[in-house]
Amino acid sequence: MYDLTIIGAGPAGITAAVYAARKKLNTLVITKNIGGQAALSGEVGNYTGYQFISGPELAKKFEEHLKSFNINLQEGVKTLSIEKTDNFKIKTEKKEFESKTVIIATGRTSRMLNIPGEKKFKNKGITYCATCDAPLFAGKDVAVIGGGNSALDAAIQLINIAKKVYLININDSFQGDEIRLEKVRNSDKVEILNSTETKEIIGHEFVKKIKVVKDSEEKILDVEGVFIEIGSTPSLIPVKAPDSELELNQYKEIVVNEHCETNIPGLFAAGDVTNIPEKQIIVAAGHGCIASLSAFGYLSKTK
Amino acid sequence: MYDLTIIGAGPAGITAAVYAARKKLNTLVITKNIGGQAALSGEVGNYTGYQFISGPELAKKFEEHLKSFNINLQEGVKTLSIEKTDNFKIKTEKKEFESKTVIIATGRTSRMLNIPGEKKFKNKGITYCATCDAPLFAGKDVAVIGGGNSALDAAIQLINIAKKVYLININDSFQGDEIRLEKVRNSDKVEILNSTETKEIIGHEFVKKIKVVKDSEEKILDVEGVFIEIGSTPSLIPVKAPDSELELNQYKEIVVNEHCETNIPGLFAAGDVTNIPEKQIIVAAGHGCIASLSAFGYLSKTK
Repeated sequence: MYDLTIIGAGPAGITAAVYAARKKLNTLVITKNIGGQAALSGEVGNYTGYQFISGPELAKKFEEHLKSFNINLQEGVKTLSIEKTDNFKIKTEKKEFESKTVIIATGRTSRMLNIPGEKKFKNKGITYCATCDAPLFAGKDVAVIGGGNSALDAAIQLINIAKKVYLININDSFQGDEIRLEKVRNSDKVEILNSTETKEIIGHEFVKKIKVVKDSEEKILDVEGVFIEIGSTPSLIPVKAPDSELELNQYKEIVVNEHCETNIPGLFAAGDVTNIPEKQIIVAAGHGCIASLSAFGYLSKTK
Repeated sequence: MYDLTIIGAGPAGITAAVYAARKKLNTLVITKNIGGQAALSGEVGNYTGYQFISGPELAKKFEEHLKSFNINLQEGVKTLSIEKTDNFKIKTEKKEFESKTVIIATGRTSRMLNIPGEKKFKNKGITYCATCDAPLFAGKDVAVIGGGNSALDAAIQLINIAKKVYLININDSFQGDEIRLEKVRNSDKVEILNSTETKEIIGHEFVKKIKVVKDSEEKILDVEGVFIEIGSTPSLIPVKAPDSELELNQYKEIVVNEHCETNIPGLFAAGDVTNIPEKQIIVAAGHGCIASLSAFGYLSKTK
């Protein structure tokens, strides 16, 4: 029986684990991967204390911090469900665990365009992670689809790698940081197409072109790579509790209060999977701390 | 006229400034010092990404991050008042500034015992900052007063410096981390006195003794240093607004919602000066990010 089980090991989950370990809680961390979406970022310039660090490097620092404590880490393991009885039963692909409290810190997964060709060419020219896959497109023409920071980040990474980058934004302006937008605008490799909708991804074995529409006019762009960066959805885990359903908001995010408490006693959530208004590494880390201290407070009251 | 003025440069204020600078806001930071209470911490083991770092070192990293951006930093300057008219007028000892939005991130100040001798011997043996002053008490007998993490931290720092450390706690148990408590218990230099109240600080030019009461019995302890670590209060700045007073909670903390908005439009607050439930470096930093992005959103809507 664990005091606390943390599901997910991105910035929120790892920070929760660090605090739990320092409180000497008997802690279990179950995660598919370490670093979460932070590990997929290109350049991180806004994690206070690190002026410039790449996403994978920052994730590595987080991982080392996590592993400096003696806690049970189940890495590469998918959690299938959480069931509340007297305590919590956490079912994974491999084993079942029991825990007095649980923090869900599973973050988010990339959103799909849901257009023809997308499923067919996934990993055959289509990618949802520029940091992971940009190097595969050296010297090629590519398209980045999206209008926020993650699309701008993808374009910035590709400037040094690809031959040409179409940046396709369905809206008429970008939502990202001015500092990023400037970098993109200053590159003669990037062609920005605002108010442009992507309609289809076309190819044989691999991606060859995409069909886009701007001002009701159809265009075909020759590209070998398509980077889809149109946001993400919360990565939920089915939760069963005797009397209540886990409360979600309209975006399917887990609703937590300022103490990271969900509507189910003993079940906490932190980071990008929740309704916290900003999805940022430093915010998720702070949120993980709060969830951990709340779980500790809950245990002190119930043990 | 500034877009955003941030008052305070601890973890919250600095993170707010980093985000504002990256959004290319015309930003002013006014602060008495850099690093806030983080700079006064001994060992910081729970700022995710830095396994072990001293408070001053972490504050230095924060400072470098802040100074890597081209923003107006007014260091060593006390803010006297904030007045809302159409915009905000910020009065300091030196000058007056005008800004469209303001983030208060002034943190907290140490609480006093309010007992005889405390005012007289302040900085003459009495200190509120172990990190700053512990080295002055090498080889001496000292007392640490308090029952939380900051008292434990002070005692831990003093183990390697002082000859003997009395740890005087008015309650019957400690509220701090188990990991810290263990270190204190394992040291034969530390004598823990629980359920003990400090009544008076006695000396001539400098502290010589303290009077304490345990189980209604008075005791005199010979010490040359007294480290008072009994918590802190929010560092408020007078705010004048036409129709409303700035809302505070029962602890005199600024009440903010999940977007770090106060009840006065355009005025935000972040970190330990607010009602955020946990006062931790990583939490304050995350909070500063939220405040900054909220101020940016406010400016986008009003400009």
